[in-house]
Amino acid sequence: MSEQDRPSSVPGDALARFHAVIPAGGVGTRLWPLSRAATPKFLHDLTGSGHTLIRATYDRLAPLAPGRVMVVTGQAHRDAVVSQLPEVDESDVVIETEPKDSGAAIGLAAAILHLRNPETIMGSFAADHAISPDSLFRDVVREAVHTAATGRIVTIGIKPTYPSTGFGYIQLGEPLTVEGAPHALTVRTFVEKPSEEVATEYVASGEYCWNAGMFVAPTSLMLHHLERAQPELYAGLTEIARAWDTPDRDAVVARVWPGLPKIAIDYAVAEPAAAAGDVAVVPADFRWDDVGDFAAIGRLNPAGSGVTVLGEHARVVTDNATGVVVTGTNRLIALIGVQDIVVVDTPDALLVTTADNAQAVKKTVEQLKASGAEDVL
Amino acid sequence: MSEQDRPSSVPGDALARFHAVIPAGGVGTRLWPLSRAATPKFLHDLTGSGHTLIRATYDRLAPLAPGRVMVVTGQAHRDAVVSQLPEVDESDVVIETEPKDSGAAIGLAAAILHLRNPETIMGSFAADHAISPDSLFRDVVREAVHTAATGRIVTIGIKPTYPSTGFGYIQLGEPLTVEGAPHALTVRTFVEKPSEEVATEYVASGEYCWNAGMFVAPTSLMLHHLERAQPELYAGLTEIARAWDTPDRDAVVARVWPGLPKIAIDYAVAEPAAAAGDVAVVPADFRWDDVGDFAAIGRLNPAGSGVTVLGEHARVVTDNATGVVVTGTNRLIALIGVQDIVVVDTPDALLVTTADNAQAVKKTVEQLKASGAEDVL
Repeated sequence: MSEQDRPSSVPGDALARFHAVIPAGGVGTRLWPLSRAATPKFLHDLTGSGHTLIRATYDRLAPLAPGRVMVVTGQAHRDAVVSQLPEVDESDVVIETEPKDSGAAIGLAAAILHLRNPETIMGSFAADHAISPDSLFRDVVREAVHTAATGRIVTIGIKPTYPSTGFGYIQLGEPLTVEGAPHALTVRTFVEKPSEEVATEYVASGEYCWNAGMFVAPTSLMLHHLERAQPELYAGLTEIARAWDTPDRDAVVARVWPGLPKIAIDYAVAEPAAAAGDVAVVPADFRWDDVGDFAAIGRLNPAGSGVTVLGEHARVVTDNATGVVVTGTNRLIALIGVQDIVVVDTPDALLVTTADNAQAVKKTVEQLKASGAEDVL
Repeated sequence: MSEQDRPSSVPGDALARFHAVIPAGGVGTRLWPLSRAATPKFLHDLTGSGHTLIRATYDRLAPLAPGRVMVVTGQAHRDAVVSQLPEVDESDVVIETEPKDSGAAIGLAAAILHLRNPETIMGSFAADHAISPDSLFRDVVREAVHTAATGRIVTIGIKPTYPSTGFGYIQLGEPLTVEGAPHALTVRTFVEKPSEEVATEYVASGEYCWNAGMFVAPTSLMLHHLERAQPELYAGLTEIARAWDTPDRDAVVARVWPGLPKIAIDYAVAEPAAAAGDVAVVPADFRWDDVGDFAAIGRLNPAGSGVTVLGEHARVVTDNATGVVVTGTNRLIALIGVQDIVVVDTPDALLVTTADNAQAVKKTVEQLKASGAEDVL
């Protein structure tokens, strides 16, 4: 939208209109055999906090949006999610009856919230990331909400700690002047996952943040861009949203959802919004980890010079060993003379690798899938 | 004995008097958690032959001593041993009602066999070593029997393949002239486990063999030295032996065995015999391994550049991995980017180490014992 059309933010008001949405999808293949189809990453405690990642995400958001947290998840995980988040009303548990990518999942949340209140500012935060401290996170989200209230889709930028080739990058632009959001900036460009060389330049320049996929935006602006970029998806989601808080919900979902196009929210909304100059960024100082593989488990659970152990019933003995053990059984595990080792012990599958090879786990899981070993996936 | 007293060997006759004794003891601590109190090393197939080590030992000896194989084992393993060796008569299964070291175990076998036939030549061969090929082994044992028939305790010397510090060494002496035993030699000295430096000298010199603990001897000569060196042990064993083939066996064992002194056969018999000049050696060319640790499993089951897998129900997938997997469960095991790894997967305990650390397993088992973790030992 043009700058003169942009509403000015009224800080208190914007925060009261904020709804949090937690998309809880993704198996976390690189965390196999801990994380798998039946028990995906967000249902595990991977930080040693005593809470699953989805519960920690909820607890991080609830003070910002008390009673205003929506979750989107797959049919298979409905019961587990409800059990983790008993405070969330049944009408705020959005079930993907079949996987349709993030465009449909987050778009439906936007459409439902928008119909309930067209002034809604929504924020989308993955269920399976590790963030600390929560207070810094909430400071950043508040700035993002105030910035979103000026009619922008606001990404949260993570200050890069190493030249990752696994994340997209956001090139920071000029400061905005938004009340309650002193750190908000325009976005110069979004960059897809770069090469290591390019990533190294980005990090050295200080001009780039990681794109962690977290954003805050008015539902009206989300749907505006969605309607123009993906009219078919928009129409379907609107039809479901109209039936959502009625007895027709299940029937309409069953009729409409299966035909929705599969597209990522980035392509359906974020790119058109960026092209229109409707995006902003709030750089964040909190510690963030997407817990993408077992090397992350080691980073998030430092054991000093020894072995990090995750698991309630763990019985682990070590002699001259370092690394990570994640145990889902009550077996005794002895590690002798192995360094940076990763051992993941589950009742039907055992992984032995090293932190350096953590990314390669995905390849093995794909091979298992190709070979028909569905029982352990 | 003096050389003029020494009987001359009559080849055919000596072989007909040969009885094999298989002491089946020893947990094999370095092979934990595969080998443990309830299922010691000799009850496992560690060479991929399809047979347990004790069965392979029996099959190797039976052609030399058909119907003349005796086994000595602990009370706890009686049923397993009988099940492995159904051909062995009940009167040839000698049970140690409590552990009394090899002096009592092998000494009792000698005493029983001697009472049945004072002309017996016995050979003692551990139940848990790996030997191949059997034909070469039998050639060597035949030479040892002929040499023993001349009134000697004959050790079988293993040509060393590396400067082991884990075995004793035999310094070879002069050739003997025994019919049917062209390779028999006198023994210059027995040496306890040497330092690596000394072991390297021994191997380079070509004058030394490993002492694998295998020997062949007339029972009369065994008991002669036992009586002189350990009169109390000799008396007790003789008392049990007299009752062995009578209805009094169990009662006498129960009364006498618990009071027997604990001493190794080397001290009870071999050293006094060596001092008397009554020992000889037949150097052997067969491949021998005491299967002392998991590094041995790798040597005995070469996998080329990949991963050796032992276990009936093994489901193992690998990516850039080398080493050994021994599995006692039907879990899927994935090894990614780990080299020379040793993974031993049992229902209640998991070991992850490397071949280089194979000897350190014993230390961990001792720590587990000290910490009261008897359930996994």
